Amino acid sequence: MRTYKITVSYDGGNYQGWQRQSTTKNTIQGILEEKISEILGYEVRIHGSGRTDAGVHALGQTASFEVSGKLCEEEFLFKLSKELPSDIRVYRMELVKNGFHARLSAKAKKYEYHIDRGKGRDVFWRKYAMYYPENLDVEKMRLAADELLGNHCFTAFCDNKEEKSNIRDIYEIKICEDGNFLHITYYGNGFLYHMVRILTGTLVEVGRGEKTVDEIPKMIDAKKRENAGFLAPAHGLVLKEVIY
Amino acid sequence: MRTYKITVSYDGGNYQGWQRQSTTKNTIQGILEEKISEILGYEVRIHGSGRTDAGVHALGQTASFEVSGKLCEEEFLFKLSKELPSDIRVYRMELVKNGFHARLSAKAKKYEYHIDRGKGRDVFWRKYAMYYPENLDVEKMRLAADELLGNHCFTAFCDNKEEKSNIRDIYEIKICEDGNFLHITYYGNGFLYHMVRILTGTLVEVGRGEKTVDEIPKMIDAKKRENAGFLAPAHGLVLKEVIY
Repeated sequence: MRTYKITVSYDGGNYQGWQRQSTTKNTIQGILEEKISEILGYEVRIHGSGRTDAGVHALGQTASFEVSGKLCEEEFLFKLSKELPSDIRVYRMELVKNGFHARLSAKAKKYEYHIDRGKGRDVFWRKYAMYYPENLDVEKMRLAADELLGNHCFTAFCDNKEEKSNIRDIYEIKICEDGNFLHITYYGNGFLYHMVRILTGTLVEVGRGEKTVDEIPKMIDAKKRENAGFLAPAHGLVLKEVIY
Repeated sequence: MRTYKITVSYDGGNYQGWQRQSTTKNTIQGILEEKISEILGYEVRIHGSGRTDAGVHALGQTASFEVSGKLCEEEFLFKLSKELPSDIRVYRMELVKNGFHARLSAKAKKYEYHIDRGKGRDVFWRKYAMYYPENLDVEKMRLAADELLGNHCFTAFCDNKEEKSNIRDIYEIKICEDGNFLHITYYGNGFLYHMVRILTGTLVEVGRGEKTVDEIPKMIDAKKRENAGFLAPAHGLVLKEVIY
C-alpha cells in the first residue's frame, strides 16, 4: 500500500459541500472518490483535512488516500484533470509516509473571508464575497480580533451539537483593506463547525457598533452561541491552506 | 431633455453580448433598456460605447441615454440596482452635455485579455481567462506587440464584413506576467469587430513560434484575415475603460 496526499482547489458554488453524502452525488469528496476509483479500477475512499460547508470554496484543501501498487503520479493527475469538472482541480500529489491522514495529521489551517463593501455589488466578486455595504469600523474589528487570539473554548462561536472539546488555538487574524474589499484571514490549529463564518459575523457586528470589543472575552466565557454574531454566508469563505 | 452617461460592469458569461436583438431578451443593452424604461415609465433607448461579443465581460462599459425632465441620480441608481441581475451593475451616472453620445463621443478604449498558462486550469479564473498551458515566449510576444502599435489599417485583424475604414490607432499594448497568468492590455482609439481577440490569438501564435515578429508588418500590409492568428475565446476578454 502507498499513501498519497493531494491538494485540491474548488469553486464550491455548485456543490453540497465537501463531505460525501448518501442523498446526493454532488459533493467534492463524492466526485473525487468516483473519478479516482474509475481511474484506478477499484474503490478508493479519500480522507479530507476537514469538511467545508455547501458553497464554501478552497484554494488548498488536502486529502489522503491509499493505493495498492505503484502509480505514475503525473499520468494519474493528467487523467484526473480530464475527468474532473472545471470547478474542481487536483493540482498537487505527493507520496507520503504510510499512516499519514489528511485530517488527523493536520497541524494548522488558514482560511480567508472576503467582504465587498462597495456602494454596489462587484459583479466579479458576487459569488466569492459577502456583500455588506454598511460602514464598518475596521480598527475596532482589529481590536476585537485580537481578543479572539489564543487558546480558548470556542463553543460560543460554533454550531457543533456534540459535546466534545471545543478548545482551539487561533494564532492570527489579519484584516486587510483593499479598495471596497475587506479580506479577513484566520490562522489556527483547527476550526469548529461554522466557526470562521460566525467569527466573521461577530467581527462585522463589532465593526457596525452592535457589539463592543469588551464583549468578546465575555462571549468566550459564557459559551453561548446566541451571544456571538450572525453566520456569515458560505460563499465568502475560502479554505486557503492546510499545514502539516 | 437631459442626457446621461452611465458606466456599467458585467459578467458577460450569461449573455448574448451587449447589443439588443429581436431574437433574444438576453443581452446587456436589452436588459438595461427594459429596466431603465420600467423605472422612468416611458421607453428609453440607450447607446453603448460599442458592442461587446457574447461572453465578453466589462468593467467600464459606458452608455448614454436621454430622459425627459429631472431625476434624482442617486435614487435612480438605487432603484436600478434592485432591478438588475447581480451580474450587471451600473455603478456611475453623470449628467452630460446634450449631444453627448457614448459611441460617437468616445476618444479611446482599454481592453484586457487574460491567459491562464498553469499546468492545470485555475478554477476561479475558468470563466475569465483563456486556458492555454503551452510554452509562450513572452519577449517575442512583446516585440510582436510593438509592431502592431500606431496607425494602421487592421483589416487582417478583424472579422468586419463591411468595406468601410478599418484604420485604427493602437497607443499601447502591455503584456504583464503574474504567476501562471498573462494579462495583455490594449489601449487604442478604437477596435474593430473581433480585433482584440484576433490580436491576442496572433500574439499567442508568435509566442508559440508558429508566427514570427517579422511577419506582423506583412500581415498588416496584406490585409488578409487568414494570415493573422486564431480568434481567442470571448470569456478571456474584458472591456476595461472608455475614455472621453
